[in-house]
Amino acid sequence: MGRTLTYPKKPSNTVNRYKHRATYDLGAIHSIINSTQVLHVSFSPGPSEPFPAILPMIGQMGSFDYPSASIDEPLDCYLHGYVSSRIMNLARDSEGEGLPVCVAASKVDGLILSLTPNSHSYNYRSAIIQGYAQLVTDEAEKLYAMELITNSVLADRWANTRVPPDRAEMSSTVILRVKVVSGSGKIRDGGVSDEKKDTGNEEVTDRVWTGVVPVWETFGEPVPSDQNKVAEVPGYISAFVAAQNAGNRQYAEKAIGVQLPKEEQH
Amino acid sequence: MGRTLTYPKKPSNTVNRYKHRATYDLGAIHSIINSTQVLHVSFSPGPSEPFPAILPMIGQMGSFDYPSASIDEPLDCYLHGYVSSRIMNLARDSEGEGLPVCVAASKVDGLILSLTPNSHSYNYRSAIIQGYAQLVTDEAEKLYAMELITNSVLADRWANTRVPPDRAEMSSTVILRVKVVSGSGKIRDGGVSDEKKDTGNEEVTDRVWTGVVPVWETFGEPVPSDQNKVAEVPGYISAFVAAQNAGNRQYAEKAIGVQLPKEEQH
Repeated sequence: MGRTLTYPKKPSNTVNRYKHRATYDLGAIHSIINSTQVLHVSFSPGPSEPFPAILPMIGQMGSFDYPSASIDEPLDCYLHGYVSSRIMNLARDSEGEGLPVCVAASKVDGLILSLTPNSHSYNYRSAIIQGYAQLVTDEAEKLYAMELITNSVLADRWANTRVPPDRAEMSSTVILRVKVVSGSGKIRDGGVSDEKKDTGNEEVTDRVWTGVVPVWETFGEPVPSDQNKVAEVPGYISAFVAAQNAGNRQYAEKAIGVQLPKEEQH
Repeated sequence: MGRTLTYPKKPSNTVNRYKHRATYDLGAIHSIINSTQVLHVSFSPGPSEPFPAILPMIGQMGSFDYPSASIDEPLDCYLHGYVSSRIMNLARDSEGEGLPVCVAASKVDGLILSLTPNSHSYNYRSAIIQGYAQLVTDEAEKLYAMELITNSVLADRWANTRVPPDRAEMSSTVILRVKVVSGSGKIRDGGVSDEKKDTGNEEVTDRVWTGVVPVWETFGEPVPSDQNKVAEVPGYISAFVAAQNAGNRQYAEKAIGVQLPKEEQH
């Protein structure tokens, strides 16, 4: 029998609002992170700085020790950055387990247009993980993560470029590994949900259009560079573009059709 | 003569990597925030918590005191949330200027596919602002912000719903106003940029396709709810969907054609 691994609920990651939308499943949380093009990574710049910092970064969940681990198993979060950036310096200088970070991923799947502004919402998927970031120093692990991250931008791209990176490239690129200690996700799907005070008011229902506008990320026709010498767009690129477009659209449209649970408000 | 207002450069907001992509212009930074569907808001949950928190929120730059202020003038950031959420409690209990937060917005406009993984990049727009968040207590200001935020999701939606919010709705919704003290943005556009060691290597250039895959957010056909009683999708909705789709696509495609500065690497 299968089992579902979940992140432990703690005050820091427990969802208190719309609890039925919350998920602590590793699979759901890791999937949202891995399908998001830009992650937002937060860290404290130091005791003298009042404000937390946020950096947009490219990253991916994976396991160097168990590369065949599936998405619902314990994984690390690998983040790609530049050698002299502030987060890398902080991680390099951090003591103990590493630099405490929070990694967030969010996708909008639809605009929920209800009778009242208060019942408006998005269909969306969001996830956060919290953990300790350390620089990857092992060369094999670094290469593993670089390939993982490159292929997350476009499937199979790594093997179809000039690899491996040379000395200068290896040293200018820094990979952070976040050991995850906590995580949570939130998924909203379904349609419009209004309250009786409005659905029973004909003056309102006769003039306010309600429904959902699906939203998804579209990849356009690949545009070759001036220097490109490969005559045709390779199959792995056009297949990726087609699969993303179909999958993204399908998710956004299917999300609308999901039956809302009874307790759902907006 | 016009003048361009910029956020002061401090260690906390100064871009050190790819400086030519950095912007401190209020107009550019505010525009990125206002055109992003989900903002990521970071805050410290308290001294006993090692990890910063990130919350996906809907928000918008605006000025209650000077509602006609244009996008490149000093503005506050209004964020929408629920009355009992953690960030609202922290802001309510904060002393002095308010709760220190960082607000981030990022958009991907294209995948830059170069000869080597290290030269891969995104066309993107990202912005962060840092400031002090306080709860909006003035009812008129709260209504101003609720309308601003609702119309940022879909232009003109506020006036086409049941408004104003009633007592219960006003008290369950909380608006945070972030007084901005610092901000910065980063914009990457243009095409592929590779290094001579690779562009001069025929073994590489003959087999690696290089170019850009434009990326943009698409809004689908509006899907009426089961309860909807308005026969046609109203013009302000279809006009919004059409304008967003055309504008988003155009931005992503035009970004590719921008001439790269000489010092641009990847």
